Amino acid sequence: MAVTGRIDGVPSEVWDEEVLAPQFGYEAEALLPHYVSIEKVLLLEYRRMGLVDQEGTAAIAGRLDELTPELIRADPRDNMSDIFFAMERHVARGDTAPFAAWHVDRSRNDFQACGQLLSSRENVRALADGLIAFGRTVAARAAELPDSPMPGYTHAQAAQTVTPAFYLSALSEETLDAARRLLATYDGIDRSPLGAGSMAGQELPWDRERMAALLGFRQPQPHALMAVASRSWALGVASELSTFAVLLSRFTTDLMTWSGAGFGFVDFPDDLAGISAAMPQKRNFPVLERIRGRCSHVVGCAAQLAFAQHGTPYANSVEVSKEAGRHLREQFAALRSALRLAHTALATATFRTDRMREACEGDFLGAFTLANRLTLEAGVPWRTAQVIAGAYVRAAIAKGLTAATPDGPLLAAVAEEHGHRVPEPDALLAGSLDADKAVRVKRSAGSTHPDAVRAMLAAQDRGYQEVSGQWRMRAETASAAAARVDALLADPSTDSAAESTEGSAP
Amino acid sequence: MAVTGRIDGVPSEVWDEEVLAPQFGYEAEALLPHYVSIEKVLLLEYRRMGLVDQEGTAAIAGRLDELTPELIRADPRDNMSDIFFAMERHVARGDTAPFAAWHVDRSRNDFQACGQLLSSRENVRALADGLIAFGRTVAARAAELPDSPMPGYTHAQAAQTVTPAFYLSALSEETLDAARRLLATYDGIDRSPLGAGSMAGQELPWDRERMAALLGFRQPQPHALMAVASRSWALGVASELSTFAVLLSRFTTDLMTWSGAGFGFVDFPDDLAGISAAMPQKRNFPVLERIRGRCSHVVGCAAQLAFAQHGTPYANSVEVSKEAGRHLREQFAALRSALRLAHTALATATFRTDRMREACEGDFLGAFTLANRLTLEAGVPWRTAQVIAGAYVRAAIAKGLTAATPDGPLLAAVAEEHGHRVPEPDALLAGSLDADKAVRVKRSAGSTHPDAVRAMLAAQDRGYQEVSGQWRMRAETASAAAARVDALLADPSTDSAAESTEGSAP
Amino acid sequence: MAVTGRIDGVPSEVWDEEVLAPQFGYEAEALLPHYVSIEKVLLLEYRRMGLVDQEGTAAIAGRLDELTPELIRADPRDNMSDIFFAMERHVARGDTAPFAAWHVDRSRNDFQACGQLLSSRENVRALADGLIAFGRTVAARAAELPDSPMPGYTHAQAAQTVTPAFYLSALSEETLDAARRLLATYDGIDRSPLGAGSMAGQELPWDRERMAALLGFRQPQPHALMAVASRSWALGVASELSTFAVLLSRFTTDLMTWSGAGFGFVDFPDDLAGISAAMPQKRNFPVLERIRGRCSHVVGCAAQLAFAQHGTPYANSVEVSKEAGRHLREQFAALRSALRLAHTALATATFRTDRMREACEGDFLGAFTLANRLTLEAGVPWRTAQVIAGAYVRAAIAKGLTAATPDGPLLAAVAEEHGHRVPEPDALLAGSLDADKAVRVKRSAGSTHPDAVRAMLAAQDRGYQEVSGQWRMRAETASAAAARVDALLADPSTDSAAESTEGSAP
Amino acid sequence: MAVTGRIDGVPSEVWDEEVLAPQFGYEAEALLPHYVSIEKVLLLEYRRMGLVDQEGTAAIAGRLDELTPELIRADPRDNMSDIFFAMERHVARGDTAPFAAWHVDRSRNDFQACGQLLSSRENVRALADGLIAFGRTVAARAAELPDSPMPGYTHAQAAQTVTPAFYLSALSEETLDAARRLLATYDGIDRSPLGAGSMAGQELPWDRERMAALLGFRQPQPHALMAVASRSWALGVASELSTFAVLLSRFTTDLMTWSGAGFGFVDFPDDLAGISAAMPQKRNFPVLERIRGRCSHVVGCAAQLAFAQHGTPYANSVEVSKEAGRHLREQFAALRSALRLAHTALATATFRTDRMREACEGDFLGAFTLANRLTLEAGVPWRTAQVIAGAYVRAAIAKGLTAATPDGPLLAAVAEEHGHRVPEPDALLAGSLDADKAVRVKRSAGSTHPDAVRAMLAAQDRGYQEVSGQWRMRAETASAAAARVDALLADPSTDSAAESTEGSAP
Repeated sequence: MAVTGRIDGVPSEVWDEEVLAPQFGYEAEALLPHYVSIEKVLLLEYRRMGLVDQEGTAAIAGRLDELTPELIRADPRDNMSDIFFAMERHVARGDTAPFAAWHVDRSRNDFQACGQLLSSRENVRALADGLIAFGRTVAARAAELPDSPMPGYTHAQAAQTVTPAFYLSALSEETLDAARRLLATYDGIDRSPLGAGSMAGQELPWDRERMAALLGFRQPQPHALMAVASRSWALGVASELSTFAVLLSRFTTDLMTWSGAGFGFVDFPDDLAGISAAMPQKRNFPVLERIRGRCSHVVGCAAQLAFAQHGTPYANSVEVSKEAGRHLREQFAALRSALRLAHTALATATFRTDRMREACEGDFLGAFTLANRLTLEAGVPWRTAQVIAGAYVRAAIAKGLTAATPDGPLLAAVAEEHGHRVPEPDALLAGSLDADKAVRVKRSAGSTHPDAVRAMLAAQDRGYQEVSGQWRMRAETASAAAARVDALLADPSTDSAAESTEGSAP
Repeated sequence: MAVTGRIDGVPSEVWDEEVLAPQFGYEAEALLPHYVSIEKVLLLEYRRMGLVDQEGTAAIAGRLDELTPELIRADPRDNMSDIFFAMERHVARGDTAPFAAWHVDRSRNDFQACGQLLSSRENVRALADGLIAFGRTVAARAAELPDSPMPGYTHAQAAQTVTPAFYLSALSEETLDAARRLLATYDGIDRSPLGAGSMAGQELPWDRERMAALLGFRQPQPHALMAVASRSWALGVASELSTFAVLLSRFTTDLMTWSGAGFGFVDFPDDLAGISAAMPQKRNFPVLERIRGRCSHVVGCAAQLAFAQHGTPYANSVEVSKEAGRHLREQFAALRSALRLAHTALATATFRTDRMREACEGDFLGAFTLANRLTLEAGVPWRTAQVIAGAYVRAAIAKGLTAATPDGPLLAAVAEEHGHRVPEPDALLAGSLDADKAVRVKRSAGSTHPDAVRAMLAAQDRGYQEVSGQWRMRAETASAAAARVDALLADPSTDSAAESTEGSAP
Repeated sequence: MAVTGRIDGVPSEVWDEEVLAPQFGYEAEALLPHYVSIEKVLLLEYRRMGLVDQEGTAAIAGRLDELTPELIRADPRDNMSDIFFAMERHVARGDTAPFAAWHVDRSRNDFQACGQLLSSRENVRALADGLIAFGRTVAARAAELPDSPMPGYTHAQAAQTVTPAFYLSALSEETLDAARRLLATYDGIDRSPLGAGSMAGQELPWDRERMAALLGFRQPQPHALMAVASRSWALGVASELSTFAVLLSRFTTDLMTWSGAGFGFVDFPDDLAGISAAMPQKRNFPVLERIRGRCSHVVGCAAQLAFAQHGTPYANSVEVSKEAGRHLREQFAALRSALRLAHTALATATFRTDRMREACEGDFLGAFTLANRLTLEAGVPWRTAQVIAGAYVRAAIAKGLTAATPDGPLLAAVAEEHGHRVPEPDALLAGSLDADKAVRVKRSAGSTHPDAVRAMLAAQDRGYQEVSGQWRMRAETASAAAARVDALLADPSTDSAAESTEGSAP
Repeated sequence: MAVTGRIDGVPSEVWDEEVLAPQFGYEAEALLPHYVSIEKVLLLEYRRMGLVDQEGTAAIAGRLDELTPELIRADPRDNMSDIFFAMERHVARGDTAPFAAWHVDRSRNDFQACGQLLSSRENVRALADGLIAFGRTVAARAAELPDSPMPGYTHAQAAQTVTPAFYLSALSEETLDAARRLLATYDGIDRSPLGAGSMAGQELPWDRERMAALLGFRQPQPHALMAVASRSWALGVASELSTFAVLLSRFTTDLMTWSGAGFGFVDFPDDLAGISAAMPQKRNFPVLERIRGRCSHVVGCAAQLAFAQHGTPYANSVEVSKEAGRHLREQFAALRSALRLAHTALATATFRTDRMREACEGDFLGAFTLANRLTLEAGVPWRTAQVIAGAYVRAAIAKGLTAATPDGPLLAAVAEEHGHRVPEPDALLAGSLDADKAVRVKRSAGSTHPDAVRAMLAAQDRGYQEVSGQWRMRAETASAAAARVDALLADPSTDSAAESTEGSAP
């Protein structure tokens, strides 16, 4: 049985090997259940339009339910190695031949666009779940260490005293933000292309609103051309994945530094550690390099996807939908893997508070506070207070002192050189340079003060609850729609739309 | 006057030439007004906290108001070629010396982050205005040609009959979508970093909510570290620009094809045409190549920005804020230029409806309709109808026929070969292949039918009104905040917050 | 049996699933033969250094020869899911225990770097073969149509008359260039890392020159750190692949245009054509979209590889060698596929010379020649000649004339307007605008004149012979080295180096 | 005076502002001298072909010599804001009108391609000089510290003892390699497009070999279409810049780590240090962030350039030559800046050998040597030796020992547990773990042994001499060609080619 009268012959071997067969394999694996869902909704529409009765409907629905990746195979001769034809053939070979008008006024273009979107929506929901689970773990780890001082860094130099809780709560906040933004992205693309036809719309009175609802979409995609030609939605999703990957790579970079030589602030369990085959003293954490490498891949996939669409015609094209589309699939996989590794790493990391405290005490992280106090308590103009504090640090380093060994007379002398008298230099230094006090001296909202961090974690906890509720709702919409379709197929009496006299085919 | 006691000397010549002076120049040009706004808000806070009286406030505000790009200059000796110090110096050299505590408990980190965000928000608003103006022009051009047939293409082959209105309304729909998505992006990043300090928060009772409101932000950024370390917001903005640029490049590609040899569907006025210096017959449209080239640059900037952030520490860093940040600035400029060119091109393009109609008639764009009718009217099963229609096309081409010269007997003969009788083949062909009828045979929502396109354009018009209202509101928030700051600086009695006893400095 | 005393336990499940097992699988498939080659060379060195006798050598060599991807399996408990340990275990479990010093003074770092390089060299050679075969096919197709006029385009407008031979010979020339450049790239990276150890060099007197020669390398990599830390060589290879892919995408773009609606210059056989499932008149050539999509991927892989290395420490790292390294593997696969498709497409394409000629005659491609003649034969200053020729074209179009219907009096009138007399305007036009003459009027080296094209094709033919000879030599070097290793393992008496007393271990 | 008869009017304001005027400005600044060179060579050809006498030649040459960026201005009305027409106009307005045939048979296409190539060649030569100067400085710094132990790292953990000389000599080796590869890139693209005309070749007997020689090219570009359509050469250059930038970014990453908190191995002078405006203790090295940021930009430019060419027609196009071309210009600028900063940073860095030694002694970098010795001196099988050495390290850490405090009995006990007796455990440990000995225990070519490093540096020195000689030769070829052109213009009698009767115009 031919599928076309336009060309002869079967796909060439090269064409089949390089393109058709792998494409078929991918679609059978990843898109088949979505294609079946779509076919069922189309079938309901044919029934509604009076082109088939319930018996014919049930026969096709039954055949559709049999379809599995194992059942159908790419075959250049039988189905031109095209899954759409393979599905059509499977149905046609059932005991009951499908009704004559089956697939009339239909196109693969909106069908494929719809399948890709359903699959991507599913991937986005799974990713959101992963993000939320990750963020909650991070927040839980943060809550463990709200008071313990660690150096905060800028430009690779120790800058101010913070805490592990403060640092990790930033990662949690970013993750929560990402899970929220993804919600808007999801809603923005949650539009059904079905019923757009090849590109110009359809000729029968398909009910696009109803088809959208039966597939769990918020609404139909308004423009038929846009429905099949546009993959702006893929760019939107890819960008969000990329943005989060960049973020994750930055935190991973800090973990690489802090678990590495020179710091030793963070440790990971043996079952995540790598050894050297030859250097017996090594304990490596290649898991961090893997995370960062995969984040880089996630970023690269977004760039590739955009460039692969750039400069193509605004039309249905395999270059955009399939060739470019592969970058989105790879991106999901890469981020899922990076996130799983990062989740494990953060869940099992040990924070060496002893080493962090030691690092705080080895530097002069309170110099900013010292300058503040010189101004506020000793009336030194701020810029001069900066100069005095800086000059004290310099002189102290020259004398081999650290923050743990404050030298009041030295401060007094330095201040004197700059024309200022400091009343109680020892107290001033002690209040400024002590690591534990340094954590509590900050008082603004969002600061490293343990109370401020606790407040942020509490707000995040509410945020996670809310956002995961939102994602759950969306997952339920999808599954409820699928259940409704099966119910309608089984029992047309439940289908109020079918009663309508409007919109039935001529 | 030194600005630090930590290091000696002035920046080296190389460092100044390659980095500091150009950075200063950029900031003086693009960020200075925002920096002045921030300084004014800080000043209000110092007054509120009781660290300065109204006279001192007025003196500094006066000096701040004098600042222009022409007034301040990078100078390694005087200000370390740093605009923050240059501003500080300018104020310090006024007739009234600033109060001692001026700039106490302050940092450049949240200051710069805030300036960059204010500038980017402004750029985003300008871009949104540009998008809306562009989209409206496109919609207006679409409304001109709702009935005129043109070929719609898939895979570079003519596919179905559409209209210029249908095609252009897709561009308008995408543009409207972009203007809407940008709104969410804007709102998502409209958070003030001010008051985060260097990274750990601040020591005085700064009112972060109030500072945010005075700068026209929706809210403060909740986490101090995130406020200075994160540039996720830049990635979010850049992604939206990139997504639109990809889209624009695709429409531009079609315009290149349709204004080029082989088509001649679209023409541009002489003042946008390029000539050849040597080939006198040439009339080129390099404007399209320019648009596409700039779109490619927009896409590349987003990729570069992401990769420039990837793998950096999650910390305040010039690598992220300034080196990576340049890609965002370039991206705005590139998209602004591409959009301006595209706006001009689309506003002045001529659509050659004669040539489009001719192209429709030279092909068999109604074959889909023919197959539909074979099924619906002659009861031929759909797949067989496809084969018959395809075989008819093939046979007609072999005979040198086109859609404009239908051959009923040929159709009947072909159908017969496949075992089907077609009652009125001439009528069937005439109804299927006629170009004008083809536009009206589509009836689904979002289709190329003139009524459907009109409905879409009407909905878009409402969309543009709504979205431009939203953008206007955001612009007004920003300007109202600036006006409020100036009023508060002039007249403290209007400042209810200043009355509060809470939150004044020790 | 433990492999380390430094850590306990086995890799965690997540770590194994996400990283170790897939890595093992890849290496078993792609690198195992190379790893075996390296082990054999190391074994020869141990024998040469007197650490093992011939019997011990033969036992290990025998075990190594048994290794296949099927034999060894990732196993967290037995081999930490590391192929190096799996190979070590396999040898250790032979009937004869390996000598005590087996693997002494060895490292996985140079071992893995060496395996990756051997594999990449092999891929480069295969690619070069593919390029040469492709280029020769293109040149052969070019030779078929040296005289047939077709329009040459600039800025999407017809510019000058050329021939298919001229156009295709440019593709062949670029391909030949690529095959040549790849030779230099290959030679530049053909340096053995073996003997660099972990990073600092080795402690026994390994003969690095000899090991390099036995692996078929030109020389050892001079610096131990560079040998394990650098993957500049991968960037060099990736860049060449990207450059060729860009090129191929540009020719493919022309083929898309020329096989598309509006042109129809190029046709492909049915077995490469795609159909529409719904539009029976369609004959699509998605193969071109596939080629271009894969070329885009090749370009993206190079970008990703570079960015994945960027900002990493200059050290042996899995982030660079394995995570980034995957982009090179994918790139080879993508280009191989694109090239195979392009080869098939070009080998089977039909060039519709009738349509090309028609297009030439429908435009004024000879206007440049006309202007030239106005200057050279009628003494009109060049810029004025341009204006006259342009004005003639404009007036002729307005009158509905084409190049095939020259109008001497019109030319004379136009010239007159610009103050010049043209003696024989009809002859001038005829000589300038005729499509066949236009091909022969060009006479410079490298021009579209059939003789010039034949000369280029002849030079290319010599070029292909030379460059394929060069590639053959390199392939033979590699296989000769492998044969020599097996001979030496079997018969130590053939090993002159082993006789040397210098360089034996303490 | 019109320049064309094909279109009316002047470029629109938008077109001029966004595109033509900036393009003109760039070309006037960067390409004008090259354009003048080309015009002179063309003039010599016109004279040779007998189309102008020496007087006419001298008049035009004189006018050409007057051209400066200040003299010519973009003017939509006068020159269509096109530099080619502006130059033509300037010459035409001289006292002597140019001969009628001036610019006959010429095109802007090969002219512009030639100008771009001349400019890029110049940039490549300047970059090569910069690379060589940088590499020599690095090598000189390496030579200062051949014996001083520092930890070498893999996976962020200390791995083996190396020296600053060893590390820096790798950077020098990579730089030397880059300077060499660039030579091949240069030679591969050193082909003149001149004489290719618009795309199809030329009609007069231009001597393409001679024109190439007079412009200092090695040879003409063989194919006319390739000469104007291809920018593969730009991709080749861009790739080399990107590869070096990746490399430089990796070394910079190490410098960031080593000059940062936790290490303090490297220090930079105050005039390269950044301060904090608020944290008086900070001494930052933002120069490293700037270098890395610019390297990222260099990498991104190569990616952008490739993607901007991807999918364009293989034809002369402004999208490829000008829009895409800007990425190459930016890339040169970015790498020049990064290299200049890196040169300054490395020239002035201080290496803190005390801290490096301390770090060596705090770890067990000699464990590999220990395992080697257990095998070679105590006969312990290698894998067991690894386990014993690892277990010793673990036990020693548990006891709070470092490499500086070896514990023979502990080693003996650990070995015993694994069934081996170690005769002189104290001596074994001392010989293995001592930092200074560790540097000398490596003996392979390319190792960290001071003698091996000295040998590499000596070889590099020869390499720099050779490669800089090669670059000097290329610079001289270019300047000699320019001198020859001026001589020929002044005195036709020196022009042997002009005497030839062959090849004169009809």
